[in-house]
Amino acid sequence: MLSEFGRIARFLRPFPSRDPSVLAGPGDDCAITRPRPGRVLVSKVDQIVEGVHFGPAFRPEEIGHKSLAVALSDLAAAGTEPRWFLVAVAHPPELSPESLDGIARGMARLARATGIELVGGNFGRASELSLTVTALGEARPEHVLRRSGARPGDWLLVSGTLGDAALGLRKLAAGRPARLDPYVRAQLTPEPRVELGKILGRYARAAIDVSDGLLQDLGHLCERSGVGADLFVHELPLRPRVRREGLELPLSGGEDYEILCAAAPDRARALLRACRRRGWPMRRIGSLREGEGIRLLDARGEEIPLPRRRGWEHFS
Amino acid sequence: MLSEFGRIARFLRPFPSRDPSVLAGPGDDCAITRPRPGRVLVSKVDQIVEGVHFGPAFRPEEIGHKSLAVALSDLAAAGTEPRWFLVAVAHPPELSPESLDGIARGMARLARATGIELVGGNFGRASELSLTVTALGEARPEHVLRRSGARPGDWLLVSGTLGDAALGLRKLAAGRPARLDPYVRAQLTPEPRVELGKILGRYARAAIDVSDGLLQDLGHLCERSGVGADLFVHELPLRPRVRREGLELPLSGGEDYEILCAAAPDRARALLRACRRRGWPMRRIGSLREGEGIRLLDARGEEIPLPRRRGWEHFS
Repeated sequence: MLSEFGRIARFLRPFPSRDPSVLAGPGDDCAITRPRPGRVLVSKVDQIVEGVHFGPAFRPEEIGHKSLAVALSDLAAAGTEPRWFLVAVAHPPELSPESLDGIARGMARLARATGIELVGGNFGRASELSLTVTALGEARPEHVLRRSGARPGDWLLVSGTLGDAALGLRKLAAGRPARLDPYVRAQLTPEPRVELGKILGRYARAAIDVSDGLLQDLGHLCERSGVGADLFVHELPLRPRVRREGLELPLSGGEDYEILCAAAPDRARALLRACRRRGWPMRRIGSLREGEGIRLLDARGEEIPLPRRRGWEHFS
Repeated sequence: MLSEFGRIARFLRPFPSRDPSVLAGPGDDCAITRPRPGRVLVSKVDQIVEGVHFGPAFRPEEIGHKSLAVALSDLAAAGTEPRWFLVAVAHPPELSPESLDGIARGMARLARATGIELVGGNFGRASELSLTVTALGEARPEHVLRRSGARPGDWLLVSGTLGDAALGLRKLAAGRPARLDPYVRAQLTPEPRVELGKILGRYARAAIDVSDGLLQDLGHLCERSGVGADLFVHELPLRPRVRREGLELPLSGGEDYEILCAAAPDRARALLRACRRRGWPMRRIGSLREGEGIRLLDARGEEIPLPRRRGWEHFS
């Protein structure tokens, strides 16, 4: 069996260090990095646990990918440029070195693609596999976004399509799905909106990533901003198979890792144009108003009832 | 049963935010903090898992304390001032709210005492309790310490006493120990050398915390610095009960969370004086030399054999 140090050395192989901001990385006691002057530090910890956030359908590469993707998605929603990350890997002793290799490969591929660098970590024993990623990013103070800050009259925009990952999860649970199916891919290897996150702060006033389901995440944004929301159900960006399944998947399915943001109408229009120029899907799906709560409106502007299940609850 | 959001709100109660550097803390998607100009960022992730790093003898307060203490100890060894931390809590659904309260209390007490502020976290389900702490600190670039940087001729200094926590673990395993016993306290609530860490960079050239056992951690320092070490066994700072047990506890016991550092002789003398003035225990235990490997020397300067077990190996 590999020693702890052998495991670490092997895990680190696909993570070459190339960023001059990293003064000490994995292998030292602590990571030492040089911040950019005048930026704020944005940090986020996310954890995925075997049997809760991923199941036997996930390949090691996909587990590694997803553990980093969920944290990157939060950085993007904060209008942040990803810089560095740390990962704590807890696993049963019998996990094969090849599985660890795969996890590292999946994580390293996404790290390279998004410009974030692994700077530290921890290996430990546990009865189930879990990966805990702390992602660190930087933003100009005037561009960093949070859940609060939205105002009545703002437009609500969302990136990508909704409900895909939840449908993918259903397909996986039903067994033997095609692994190239877009819904299954959305579940196994969600692509965080990192590039969008880098420009978001120039346009939006508040944002959140749609990880727990649109209604729940929009609810957080409304609550923290002290506003209510009208959601135009007919404007929700849905792939055909999700549309056929009804509203529960896009409204409450969770794990979309898309960006939901609020912007004043003129800035929202500018953001829609900026996304169109870059070929990024982004769409208006509602408006914010005085008051509280979320109203679902159909194409005629009439209110339709909210579904009972609001979103993902880890302990429900 | 408490919802996820109820759990988070309850966990956060003992962590009032008081630091003006924190622009967004727990409750937002990401933590947003303002770095001090001209400092480097020092980050460290550490994880403690039920049944591996703590057992049934630990009270919730002690689990919370230890999870933060181990990460703070690494920051101290890097000559760093602690600023902010994030914690991922994974636990079985049946963990009582009172246990979570205790964990939060123990963590918050140490956070207050050491001036570090909780800025973000994550709650999730797992089959065993684990706490993953990412600690973030800052240091002047010229004062930040790592394992490399030591040179032949440097003195080796160590804080506190060695082997206490390992003896405490033995006492706990033997059942019903007095909880105020200093060895048991060293195991249950290790006190990281945070204040020492803040001045260490003015004196030392390299440092590491003694978490995996003196021989193993000194071995890392020597290897990364490209030097060998002579360890003066008769100078090791030992409490009476540890001394009676022989050399294995202080050399290979682990979990001391003391600081081992290397400094040029004049700077080492100045550090010893600075510690004496403040009432901090610090002692010279050896010298570095050209070459590699660790030699144990007795009071007459004669070499004695190294013990077979070198330190803590998580997967051994």
